[in-house]
Amino acid sequence: MTDDERFMQRALDIAARARGLTSPNPMVGAVVVRDGAMLAEGFHRAAGEPHAEIEALAAAGGGARGATLYVTLEPCVHHGRTPPCAPVVIASGVRRVVVATTDPNPLVSGRGVTALRDAGLEVATGVLAPQASKLNRVFLTAMREGRPHVTLKAATTLDGKIADIHGTSQWITGEAARLEGRRLRSEADAVVVGVGTVLADDPALTVRLDGPWPRQPLRVVLDSKARTPASAKLIQGDPPDHAVIAVGADAPEERVRALEAAGARVVRCPGADGRVSPAALLAALFAREVRGVLIEGGAEVSASFLDAGLVDRVAMFLAPRLLGGVKAPSVVAGAGRELKRAVALEGVEVRRIGDDVLIDGDVRRG
Amino acid sequence: MTDDERFMQRALDIAARARGLTSPNPMVGAVVVRDGAMLAEGFHRAAGEPHAEIEALAAAGGGARGATLYVTLEPCVHHGRTPPCAPVVIASGVRRVVVATTDPNPLVSGRGVTALRDAGLEVATGVLAPQASKLNRVFLTAMREGRPHVTLKAATTLDGKIADIHGTSQWITGEAARLEGRRLRSEADAVVVGVGTVLADDPALTVRLDGPWPRQPLRVVLDSKARTPASAKLIQGDPPDHAVIAVGADAPEERVRALEAAGARVVRCPGADGRVSPAALLAALFAREVRGVLIEGGAEVSASFLDAGLVDRVAMFLAPRLLGGVKAPSVVAGAGRELKRAVALEGVEVRRIGDDVLIDGDVRRG
Repeated sequence: MTDDERFMQRALDIAARARGLTSPNPMVGAVVVRDGAMLAEGFHRAAGEPHAEIEALAAAGGGARGATLYVTLEPCVHHGRTPPCAPVVIASGVRRVVVATTDPNPLVSGRGVTALRDAGLEVATGVLAPQASKLNRVFLTAMREGRPHVTLKAATTLDGKIADIHGTSQWITGEAARLEGRRLRSEADAVVVGVGTVLADDPALTVRLDGPWPRQPLRVVLDSKARTPASAKLIQGDPPDHAVIAVGADAPEERVRALEAAGARVVRCPGADGRVSPAALLAALFAREVRGVLIEGGAEVSASFLDAGLVDRVAMFLAPRLLGGVKAPSVVAGAGRELKRAVALEGVEVRRIGDDVLIDGDVRRG
Repeated sequence: MTDDERFMQRALDIAARARGLTSPNPMVGAVVVRDGAMLAEGFHRAAGEPHAEIEALAAAGGGARGATLYVTLEPCVHHGRTPPCAPVVIASGVRRVVVATTDPNPLVSGRGVTALRDAGLEVATGVLAPQASKLNRVFLTAMREGRPHVTLKAATTLDGKIADIHGTSQWITGEAARLEGRRLRSEADAVVVGVGTVLADDPALTVRLDGPWPRQPLRVVLDSKARTPASAKLIQGDPPDHAVIAVGADAPEERVRALEAAGARVVRCPGADGRVSPAALLAALFAREVRGVLIEGGAEVSASFLDAGLVDRVAMFLAPRLLGGVKAPSVVAGAGRELKRAVALEGVEVRRIGDDVLIDGDVRRG
């Protein structure tokens, strides 16, 4: 590992401290280094808060003059919730800037690097770029695709079952795996389930970690006929305006009104055969600044996103148990694919969590 | 790690060199040590060949006098294919014997240790016993239960599918995983598949590793109505007397005769509803000195052994791919179990093999 990589790794590590808290912005970390020693560091804590490089340069003060700034994402040049960063970097007097990834946001996209170079700064890019891209895969996918990044999460037995023949699914996996599942939820801007899951389990879909979570995700139901009860926990829960019911073209008007009266936002996402279009739902969520979506089942919802080619990452928690049963539900329903067209994962990580195993990878494109 | 454990580990390592070759005997290794230095070692190569301690003591010669003998299994006291070992150990002049596990064979079962102690030798038992038990779980289960040890092996997608909606299953997993599957086959005395697999894939079920394999397993079909074609590769393959067709009570007599004429051995294993009884099949195989059985599918065969409580180990190769499809077959069919009665694995090992993941564990009892 070179010195550049070492300091960039530090910037990535501190960027990740705000995991789940920065959306719709990316996680960014910055480190100011002079004569091989770290002077100051900073990270982006939340949208509307200062950007990482501004934090780090403020902490460095006059010491920044002649120093090197490591920043995990190209400094911005546009006015967003905060003023642009590139001019501040230039004014700080740093001599050299090391960047992991350029910003795919069309408002930035290389112009930050150009601005720094035009001002006479030395700029290096691409240092630990794969790691930085992985850290911000949600943000980067959202910027590139113009839709939220979608993670499919499920808990299954070793034989692919998400419930037994009676529909019992609590609990397939152990406590540690379920905690990790809640961590994934804390990183999402919206959690999506099917109405079948709502009717069977009435989940709250809130983030419950050690303390109160400052950025509760939207709670979204795929519900073509608007069958979600107005009394559902995900509608009645906190914060109260976070329930979204995605309905199809045939959803009865009085059901829609009842749900709206209960405080839910109803979004019409007309798809084939009266069903909800995953693409239409993602577009509606993207317009509400949702960047990361977590699909939490059931099997038909998972299949509809997979079949639409709209899953970017799969996180499967496997319990070392077998249930069997032709009629017990498997994790992905739908019509199914031919083997040669199977959805393949890459960059797969395998991790033991308690007694369970997490297999986590990105969907291979092209 | 103590010295005793270090030398026992060596004995275990050399015992494993004969993996797949010793049945119906266990794998056994032995090491002769004096003044902290290894003098000689030996392992059991095949049934009928010398036992490990005899090999090691022969290699040590006069040097064995006053030495310590490490042996992974209690020396035997009975006449089998070879004379008993305990008298040879005593005559060798070793002063101390360290044993990993006692022999559950009712013909030995502690009497080897007693014989050594009665002759004035110091005997320690239980050193690396868990590792030794795992190495010989097939032999130990067979001795304790009076039936073969059963391993269920399958290759599935991450969503539990063993084939796509058209029945295509070649190949779910990659080459490295399939090679590992063939290694498992090389450790078995009998390989079991359902007639559905025979009709769909016509597998040869032979061990194909680097060179010719000296102990080809029996090739067994669960085939209640004797539908296996006489031309099936597993009947026509080498060695020619290794095909076993397990049929139910209603198997047509002329089909049975045709299979026998083709060289297969037909075994009647009458179970409920004209089906094959897994317990009856295992009893018939045990009588033919089968100690380790490998179930290689399909989904109904796997379910019938699981439902009969006759699976001891599960080795699941998971490909990081998703197929989906309500009608695509999952790895375990049958009626299914309630979640609280799921078949649970323990001692689970998770290993990456090429792009795939092997989850391998023993079925929890009681």
